[in-house]
Amino acid sequence: MLKFEVLHTCSQTGARIGKLTTPHSIIETPVFMPVGTKATVKTMTPEEIKSIGFQIILSNTYHLYLSPGNELIRKAGGLHKFMNWGRSILTDSGGFQVFSLAKLRKVTDEGVYFRSHIDGSEHFITPEKSMKIQNDLGADIIMAFDECTPYPCSYEDAKRAVVRTSKWAYRCLNAHYNKERQALFGIVQGNVYEDLRKNSINDLVSMDFPGYAIGGLSVGEPKDLMYQVLDYTAPLLPDKKPRYLMGVGSPDCLIESIIRGIDMFDCVLQTRMARNGTVLTNRGRLVVRNAKYAEDFIPLDPECDCCVCVNYTRAYIRHLIKNNEILGLRLTTYHNLYFTWKLMENIKKAIKQNKLLDFKEEFFEKYGYI
Amino acid sequence: MLKFEVLHTCSQTGARIGKLTTPHSIIETPVFMPVGTKATVKTMTPEEIKSIGFQIILSNTYHLYLSPGNELIRKAGGLHKFMNWGRSILTDSGGFQVFSLAKLRKVTDEGVYFRSHIDGSEHFITPEKSMKIQNDLGADIIMAFDECTPYPCSYEDAKRAVVRTSKWAYRCLNAHYNKERQALFGIVQGNVYEDLRKNSINDLVSMDFPGYAIGGLSVGEPKDLMYQVLDYTAPLLPDKKPRYLMGVGSPDCLIESIIRGIDMFDCVLQTRMARNGTVLTNRGRLVVRNAKYAEDFIPLDPECDCCVCVNYTRAYIRHLIKNNEILGLRLTTYHNLYFTWKLMENIKKAIKQNKLLDFKEEFFEKYGYI
Repeated sequence: MLKFEVLHTCSQTGARIGKLTTPHSIIETPVFMPVGTKATVKTMTPEEIKSIGFQIILSNTYHLYLSPGNELIRKAGGLHKFMNWGRSILTDSGGFQVFSLAKLRKVTDEGVYFRSHIDGSEHFITPEKSMKIQNDLGADIIMAFDECTPYPCSYEDAKRAVVRTSKWAYRCLNAHYNKERQALFGIVQGNVYEDLRKNSINDLVSMDFPGYAIGGLSVGEPKDLMYQVLDYTAPLLPDKKPRYLMGVGSPDCLIESIIRGIDMFDCVLQTRMARNGTVLTNRGRLVVRNAKYAEDFIPLDPECDCCVCVNYTRAYIRHLIKNNEILGLRLTTYHNLYFTWKLMENIKKAIKQNKLLDFKEEFFEKYGYI
Repeated sequence: MLKFEVLHTCSQTGARIGKLTTPHSIIETPVFMPVGTKATVKTMTPEEIKSIGFQIILSNTYHLYLSPGNELIRKAGGLHKFMNWGRSILTDSGGFQVFSLAKLRKVTDEGVYFRSHIDGSEHFITPEKSMKIQNDLGADIIMAFDECTPYPCSYEDAKRAVVRTSKWAYRCLNAHYNKERQALFGIVQGNVYEDLRKNSINDLVSMDFPGYAIGGLSVGEPKDLMYQVLDYTAPLLPDKKPRYLMGVGSPDCLIESIIRGIDMFDCVLQTRMARNGTVLTNRGRLVVRNAKYAEDFIPLDPECDCCVCVNYTRAYIRHLIKNNEILGLRLTTYHNLYFTWKLMENIKKAIKQNKLLDFKEEFFEKYGYI
């Protein structure tokens, strides 16, 4: 059973410190969840993710459904056992990937027909099917199957998606057979329309989910617009339940969204940019694969105390990346995840001290305004 | 300064236990050296290599000369510091790669003209240049620049290569300016011709190198022929110096060559086959990427106690490799290196107990005869 308590609220911002308890671990919020799309946080072992401190990761239902398949993972004893990760897991519903990756999509009230982006095979996912897959995977937190709208999106389309998402949420609730071990979160849609977000929340809250996600953001809209939506959406969500902003996780977005009352995040940015040879530092982003770092014998971030920054130079990491050496991607990935973990630790400290706004000022002064 | 002592000789075989001391570590021989071609044992951190137990790795002069360049590594403080490996390193001379990888090669008595296999740039490597590069890299053991012949090779060509290799070895000896910290090994050539091997050894031994390598084997000849060459070559090498068989390292070749008195080995087999989804087990090779392992929920090698076999199943590793996940290559690489480390430990134990032939029998009975 999922438990959530709000332990403290920052008097400067309203940002919350929470304690989220799942069958596998205790998670202090706000929390950033590394993404392990195909049952692996790319390039990392679960031990490394654990050694940084992370208590929860996200994995993608759509990808696991296609390969190796939820049946196989169920036979393996569930996702935790399959990938050897003993702490918490959240799986998304597959909805977002069906809308962003799959081909020849056709949405009906019943569900979504699509073709796999891998082999073109035909599939039909319904709310019930998504629940079946996620029950097989066995994550601690699972997500309702939703219709995620793009940006820009007409009011009519956004409204239709909200109605459908609410109906599907209800069907998910009924189809979910493992409520004792897996907490099902509802997903708020409504695009950038305040009344639609409100309607969506009203519908979902009436179903009393143990947590609520805000979907349909970070899909191409300007950041200011995303913050506006958060400004009116987050306060409508129940105080005592965790609030999860899906697909968001750059350092600036984390800070701004936490200030607006968000408790949970996931993002592929850290791991994806790492594999492109870019790292996060206290002085902003650094493209370590650039030639200017060829003879730069200092750490990625001289202010960072992670084992990559303690042991390796920019010159060495640049050499590895330039030569397509896997170790290069491991080192940048580890650093980016550690950097984000540390940022979250500092944010939580600032919340506890009721000075998250001060922290934000200090952070951006060094990191740079984006 | 390099020190080498033979501590024990197996009464059943003549295989030796030795103690090799470099400025960076003490190495018990016979030793298998993992290959870190471009200043990284592919997919692994130096910490992982160390955690398995390895005291020495090999790195390739040809590759490092082309990228990032020996000058850069010298500026970084040498190869140990550049790659954060505090134990011993051996660099080859570049000779083998010039003959196997480079394009438009032209060999003269002075040296070798070639074009880079990466960008086609022109280069000229002489024995003196190889020494300069290896002095810049700063490995504990460095190799003389030799002419490596292929298989098959005419007697005349093999003879010319021996004469040239001896002349070049002498020039290397004179050009090597860091004899206190870096031990220069001579390389025996002579292909499959007994009298040429003998001539080569006579020439090199008269120059009194601190160690001798056997080159020009494992270049395509049948294994039995390689063992024949070892049978007459190894006994001609000085008893009190380490004997290094270059480029050899499959489990069966390790055992057979150690029986013939070899002390040092390097091979890309373990790491390369790992990246192709094949692992070494006590029951022989296992192609874990094959579909038959999709639902095989046991370890790569149930008899292995490495952290990969303790924590992960064939099904999971097969899933990772099939989906091009880097973690898959890390796990197979780690296991193959650990397996080889453990094999060497068991071989050394058998030598100490004077029963290496018994061990060989037991090993092949399970592993399979090749």
